[in-house]
Amino acid sequence: MGTNQSWGGRFSQGPAQMVADYTDSQTYDRHLYAQDIRASQAHARMLGRQGILSMAEAAELVNGLERVRQEIEDGTFVWKRELEDVHMNIEARLTELIGDTGKKLHTGRSRNDQVGLTFRLFVADALKDWQKHLSELVEALSKQAQAHKETLLPGLTHLQPAQPVSLAHHLLAYCWMLIRDSDRIADCLSRVAISPLGAAALAGTTYPLDPLSVAYDVGFQAIYDNSLDAVSDRDFVVEAQSCASLIMVHLSRLCEELILFANPNFGYLRLPDNYSTGSSIMPQKKNPDVCELMRGKSGRIFGHLMGILTVLKGLPLAYNRDLQEDKEGFLDTHTTITSSLAVMAGLIRELIFVPERMAQACKSGFLNATELADYLVGLGHPFREAHHITGKAVAMAEANGLRLEELSIKQLQSLSADITESVYEILDPARAVSRRETPGGTGPKSVETQLGKVRQWLARN
Amino acid sequence: MGTNQSWGGRFSQGPAQMVADYTDSQTYDRHLYAQDIRASQAHARMLGRQGILSMAEAAELVNGLERVRQEIEDGTFVWKRELEDVHMNIEARLTELIGDTGKKLHTGRSRNDQVGLTFRLFVADALKDWQKHLSELVEALSKQAQAHKETLLPGLTHLQPAQPVSLAHHLLAYCWMLIRDSDRIADCLSRVAISPLGAAALAGTTYPLDPLSVAYDVGFQAIYDNSLDAVSDRDFVVEAQSCASLIMVHLSRLCEELILFANPNFGYLRLPDNYSTGSSIMPQKKNPDVCELMRGKSGRIFGHLMGILTVLKGLPLAYNRDLQEDKEGFLDTHTTITSSLAVMAGLIRELIFVPERMAQACKSGFLNATELADYLVGLGHPFREAHHITGKAVAMAEANGLRLEELSIKQLQSLSADITESVYEILDPARAVSRRETPGGTGPKSVETQLGKVRQWLARN
Amino acid sequence: MGTNQSWGGRFSQGPAQMVADYTDSQTYDRHLYAQDIRASQAHARMLGRQGILSMAEAAELVNGLERVRQEIEDGTFVWKRELEDVHMNIEARLTELIGDTGKKLHTGRSRNDQVGLTFRLFVADALKDWQKHLSELVEALSKQAQAHKETLLPGLTHLQPAQPVSLAHHLLAYCWMLIRDSDRIADCLSRVAISPLGAAALAGTTYPLDPLSVAYDVGFQAIYDNSLDAVSDRDFVVEAQSCASLIMVHLSRLCEELILFANPNFGYLRLPDNYSTGSSIMPQKKNPDVCELMRGKSGRIFGHLMGILTVLKGLPLAYNRDLQEDKEGFLDTHTTITSSLAVMAGLIRELIFVPERMAQACKSGFLNATELADYLVGLGHPFREAHHITGKAVAMAEANGLRLEELSIKQLQSLSADITESVYEILDPARAVSRRETPGGTGPKSVETQLGKVRQWLARN
Amino acid sequence: MGTNQSWGGRFSQGPAQMVADYTDSQTYDRHLYAQDIRASQAHARMLGRQGILSMAEAAELVNGLERVRQEIEDGTFVWKRELEDVHMNIEARLTELIGDTGKKLHTGRSRNDQVGLTFRLFVADALKDWQKHLSELVEALSKQAQAHKETLLPGLTHLQPAQPVSLAHHLLAYCWMLIRDSDRIADCLSRVAISPLGAAALAGTTYPLDPLSVAYDVGFQAIYDNSLDAVSDRDFVVEAQSCASLIMVHLSRLCEELILFANPNFGYLRLPDNYSTGSSIMPQKKNPDVCELMRGKSGRIFGHLMGILTVLKGLPLAYNRDLQEDKEGFLDTHTTITSSLAVMAGLIRELIFVPERMAQACKSGFLNATELADYLVGLGHPFREAHHITGKAVAMAEANGLRLEELSIKQLQSLSADITESVYEILDPARAVSRRETPGGTGPKSVETQLGKVRQWLARN
Repeated sequence: MGTNQSWGGRFSQGPAQMVADYTDSQTYDRHLYAQDIRASQAHARMLGRQGILSMAEAAELVNGLERVRQEIEDGTFVWKRELEDVHMNIEARLTELIGDTGKKLHTGRSRNDQVGLTFRLFVADALKDWQKHLSELVEALSKQAQAHKETLLPGLTHLQPAQPVSLAHHLLAYCWMLIRDSDRIADCLSRVAISPLGAAALAGTTYPLDPLSVAYDVGFQAIYDNSLDAVSDRDFVVEAQSCASLIMVHLSRLCEELILFANPNFGYLRLPDNYSTGSSIMPQKKNPDVCELMRGKSGRIFGHLMGILTVLKGLPLAYNRDLQEDKEGFLDTHTTITSSLAVMAGLIRELIFVPERMAQACKSGFLNATELADYLVGLGHPFREAHHITGKAVAMAEANGLRLEELSIKQLQSLSADITESVYEILDPARAVSRRETPGGTGPKSVETQLGKVRQWLARN
Repeated sequence: MGTNQSWGGRFSQGPAQMVADYTDSQTYDRHLYAQDIRASQAHARMLGRQGILSMAEAAELVNGLERVRQEIEDGTFVWKRELEDVHMNIEARLTELIGDTGKKLHTGRSRNDQVGLTFRLFVADALKDWQKHLSELVEALSKQAQAHKETLLPGLTHLQPAQPVSLAHHLLAYCWMLIRDSDRIADCLSRVAISPLGAAALAGTTYPLDPLSVAYDVGFQAIYDNSLDAVSDRDFVVEAQSCASLIMVHLSRLCEELILFANPNFGYLRLPDNYSTGSSIMPQKKNPDVCELMRGKSGRIFGHLMGILTVLKGLPLAYNRDLQEDKEGFLDTHTTITSSLAVMAGLIRELIFVPERMAQACKSGFLNATELADYLVGLGHPFREAHHITGKAVAMAEANGLRLEELSIKQLQSLSADITESVYEILDPARAVSRRETPGGTGPKSVETQLGKVRQWLARN
Repeated sequence: MGTNQSWGGRFSQGPAQMVADYTDSQTYDRHLYAQDIRASQAHARMLGRQGILSMAEAAELVNGLERVRQEIEDGTFVWKRELEDVHMNIEARLTELIGDTGKKLHTGRSRNDQVGLTFRLFVADALKDWQKHLSELVEALSKQAQAHKETLLPGLTHLQPAQPVSLAHHLLAYCWMLIRDSDRIADCLSRVAISPLGAAALAGTTYPLDPLSVAYDVGFQAIYDNSLDAVSDRDFVVEAQSCASLIMVHLSRLCEELILFANPNFGYLRLPDNYSTGSSIMPQKKNPDVCELMRGKSGRIFGHLMGILTVLKGLPLAYNRDLQEDKEGFLDTHTTITSSLAVMAGLIRELIFVPERMAQACKSGFLNATELADYLVGLGHPFREAHHITGKAVAMAEANGLRLEELSIKQLQSLSADITESVYEILDPARAVSRRETPGGTGPKSVETQLGKVRQWLARN
Repeated sequence: MGTNQSWGGRFSQGPAQMVADYTDSQTYDRHLYAQDIRASQAHARMLGRQGILSMAEAAELVNGLERVRQEIEDGTFVWKRELEDVHMNIEARLTELIGDTGKKLHTGRSRNDQVGLTFRLFVADALKDWQKHLSELVEALSKQAQAHKETLLPGLTHLQPAQPVSLAHHLLAYCWMLIRDSDRIADCLSRVAISPLGAAALAGTTYPLDPLSVAYDVGFQAIYDNSLDAVSDRDFVVEAQSCASLIMVHLSRLCEELILFANPNFGYLRLPDNYSTGSSIMPQKKNPDVCELMRGKSGRIFGHLMGILTVLKGLPLAYNRDLQEDKEGFLDTHTTITSSLAVMAGLIRELIFVPERMAQACKSGFLNATELADYLVGLGHPFREAHHITGKAVAMAEANGLRLEELSIKQLQSLSADITESVYEILDPARAVSRRETPGGTGPKSVETQLGKVRQWLARN
């Protein structure tokens, strides 16, 4: 290897091949080529506007960079390992294409602030992409919710039957999680979309740059207030990885439920063939592999979050090469988040629910016990006492293999003398759902309100 | 143990002692007593306003809860393990104090939404506390910055001398990190301060509650849109832990630098006696233990973040007892964050910098090499070429044991014939700082601008 | 606060109260008192043997330490925060009790190697305790396995019915995981049980110590080969936390299955009352809280592992105060592991399985499809082809709402002409289990072999 | 896409392209081709020996697999995404090459136990590779230690000067860490090298296999005792990742010290040119990038450990697709560990220490204070008192800008009247090292002993 590196002047020999391989980043940071070119073009235009370069030189740089982009997108660009990273690969090719003017691109800039802006642009683009995919999944879920306003299933706590809820309500719970994810990303974006350009290596530069105009040019709204912070800050990666971790928490919870509901003992849903896989040995299998794999992928995302936190712990100012470790984890996170959200949206759209199995399940498990307790409170019992009496009723029913509504009035009165025949109306499980109309409850009006709000959110997002 | 538990009706025997110990939470969730009482009082007032209880009953509950609070704060309250958690302990004592009306407090409420509101109140209080402590540390740092606008030290990248910066600029870098932390917490707070009350166990309730008025009463601005989400959401804990992790990243970076600068080979600062500790065996030691311990405490905070993510992975709706694991990690995080920020603020206030050691260090390490490269660019060399020539100058100086400014004009001209005597002005390291006046740069005006912005921020926070 | 600290000579004022609170460890490291005293007694005896102290002095120290231990165990010992840690608290009290000789205990020793030995002793004791608890759980599981050799349930892959297995086989799977845990701990112990004493602060000491005899005295088999490594090594904590993490992985898997099997849609088991809890609002609930909480506790253990790794990352030699953060996580891990294993053993012992529900479940889900495929291989079809034909048979049965064994011979022959009536024998699900007698298979002889091996292991452990 | 999948019989349409991409593993599990072929050949030979296939068929399979391996290694093998994974790609090509006999390879085997054996073989090979690389680094370190037995540097605790140590002793500390890593891997290997073959999908198989002979054939010593455990166990991945995490802890600590020592304020070493990199903007820079990057790579390794733990948390038996997430993290870990160890070994070999800078540093920092304290103990002062007097001496020297040995005898006697002129001998820093000959101490004989033990270890490893 020669001494093509941008910093070769002082060195008597190039790095050993093994070292070059170890420190190489172009195999993965080439995915940031579009953002690097965008940032460089904005930098070149500013150099022209500020008179640091002539307008002609600036135009030459911008056009030359456009040609480089074209080559990359055509697949004719030759990536060179000895050029270390995406930045040097692009600049070297630019200089081949337009001559010595290419070398002026780096005026007033260091790789430390260049990589900062490039990566922030990439993360910002990624986060917006996540938001779009979140919206698609919210839409898919809300459409299924719309179709299942009347479908009831047992709401579970502790994985034990608790109270009946509508399937619409259940699906909407996930909509709200994902909407929260999107909001969180919006907050994160406000801290990502800040340009570090102008920080140069660490201390600012002596060139009369106009960094804010570069920020505006690339679509950012602000610049860093401090050059040391600018080149050493990777908080935004932690924050983005944290957003990603919560998305995976939500997907893993949804996957867990889909896997559970697809088990024949539940039988609440049928997986579409094209979202299932089979077994190499058991021909009857129709496995929810997609959901399992997605649940498992939460591991790598949590891992990437821990990874970047570990990198940053105890790092002195300003740039340290440890920071090169910020990218691979995020690139993998980006792929994982977008593909997981897309696959889940596709699955939800095609998912076939089985209302009759859910209805059947609603009959067991004493889902109407709370109704009885509420009835007793209506008769004037303090809640704790009503709860106690109902507990005895459940024990009595269970011991006799009956449902609550199958206990005789005498049996019920043996527990509390003031119970009358009207209790049987209240025990109708179907009524339980319709009576829960507190804001956010599972009652039909509440669910309709939720659906309306989600539609409004979708219209805005 | 009796069957004092609030759910004892159906059970033929109480849990084994070992199980009671295992599931017990009152040893730590008692720290949430103030928030639990505040939430219960708001709930009681609402029950009164809605006519679910009489106004007299509501007042009795509110006053009774006040008496319980007093007992807890006086230290006369007797916590009972068999009552499991803070909620049951308080309600049981309330009932002892005011009689059967106490049992009505739980009307229209479940422990699932009760613990949700209580814990959200606690987290919100904690986050505001963190913001206050962040402001104090920003103030301490900015005062030292104010005092050290003229002090120069070698700015490092890769822990190697890079370019001189002012100590004010260096300290301000940390201010901006901490201000970012405070902003991030503000965003987080908007997702914490949402009341789940009204969700009851999971499906909403049949009582005509007014949940939004309870939210307003406790100082929150919104309620959950979905009851299943309301009782199973712990995203806010993840987000708060993530904020805490970034605070510890920043503190660990600052600690690393303080430890480094306190080493006699640097000697940039002297630790105040009351923030140092000694050795049991080596009498000469004055150790930066506080900084080391704080750096180490980043581990527990990252760990708590990993902990809560693990808890949530793959959890089905709605409440599952796994969620009880949300509190101890956060309680420890709260203690760690507030004490770390307070200790660091105290340390920064009393820290004694040693400007002469920093000045001395500025003379070595070729900190003015960038100036020479910029000078060559000024002569018309493309940057990459200027960089290359300067590299050779550094190698020449190093080989002769000289600084750059000690090279003769002939030696310099042997590298680039167009260099003139004027180069020596530019090589004065003291000038390098003053010329970096780009926004965010280390130049005095830029630093003054930063100080002004920080002061403005402090005035608002 | 005075300057009672062991290092006070050089300091003009004691640490600020806030700093003392921050760096204090006696609130938690007092749990190591027994190990600290044991180590100090061994050290004192060695000082006597080596003639560094007189035998009378050594005896005085040993006896004085015994009195301190007695006070701690009687609850009469007064822990003093200003004495910082367990070591100084004990030594200070020792000196109060026996006079100036007490001050000689620390001869040839530093807190750096003292805390190392004390903590290694504690971890070793803890690990042996975990092994004992693992054995108890293995025993409880193997007893249930013994009782359920004939009970069949659907073996699941991807949470979908796969092939029938015996409940004994299923339970034994967990035995092997736990036995592996115990073996792993044994390996870990060989790296924990190494004494760092003699390393002093970092470089060894000038006293003619005999460190190996101290190691033997406390029950360790070796000493560290290098004093710098001795005082800075905390690898054993990482390794112990990693062992703990795998135990929690296993318990969380078992918990997940118990929670699932307790759901009425499965109904494979009934939780004993004293291992269940109820609901404050839903009187019918019988929740597997213990299992949920235990599953959730995997989070804190993974977190502690992440915590100690973070602490150690990038730490220079030798002792740094960051290392104080090694203890609290491990103390919590110890409590969590021992209580979780004990509670699970208790639960398993009292768990009531419901074989009839398992048997019923074995009838659906085409658990005998593999048998058909194997039958076709027996007729000479390559396996991949047999698999394909069976897949069509399953689709045919499913479309007609039949089980495989309910398909007519004609229907079967339409898929493969060589199928004969003998196929129906092979399709008897009950036969599938008994035919899987490969080593480790679910067949009765294989299970008997496993039970024998487990009993042998228990006899040794 | 067709329905080439091995489980296609039951399905009416292939998975959507997006799903195929999502679940695809052949892009990365192809790295396991050698292990998959080795395992398949062993399985085929056993099928022949057991008479399940004819010997001719078995030979055909073995030879056909050899041809597939050749194609892969020649680069002529065409990997097909629609064939999902390495296993199906190889089997499909095998069948193309040798016809229908190829389809018999899978007899008595499932992908569940197949992937288990393949991956265990890969992990075992990787671990042995790590051990080899660890030995090389130990050798490089021990050679530098051998060369620097006389070189002294200040031993640090809390990054403050503590006592002088020899550079050999310092470097040997890392040898012992790495030797411990190798031992830990050996223990791990005993749990990796267990064959799951024979477990089939989950329950064992009806074929008369001889699994133990397959285990021996591939170089393993044992088989799994339980088929459910066999296909669901990924503990060995956690354990291997934990071993890797500790290796990275050690490397990150060494990197931190090298970075520190390369800083000109220390100046203890010079980095070889071919292990350094420069700056694109600052021509004078010679940065320890390799060390920084390696330190940062600890993040990804800790992250992979957290990732696999997250995957396994709460997973029911037996195989679930979540387990597919076991490989990518480990593949990256393998690359990272081997390249990091190799690069570090190369760097250590070429590292240039600067003994004169170390010697100079030994003069400051009161490194001989412990000697004075020991001297006072020799005069009969209890250690605590001696420590206190020495603290005052240090304070006195510091106040006067002197070293301890520059204090007059009068000054010293003002602190303790029994001090005599002989104290100055003891204060010679050079003597401190030579007097620390306790086992593991920094004294020359102790270091020689260590070197001998390391050489013996290297001879065996």
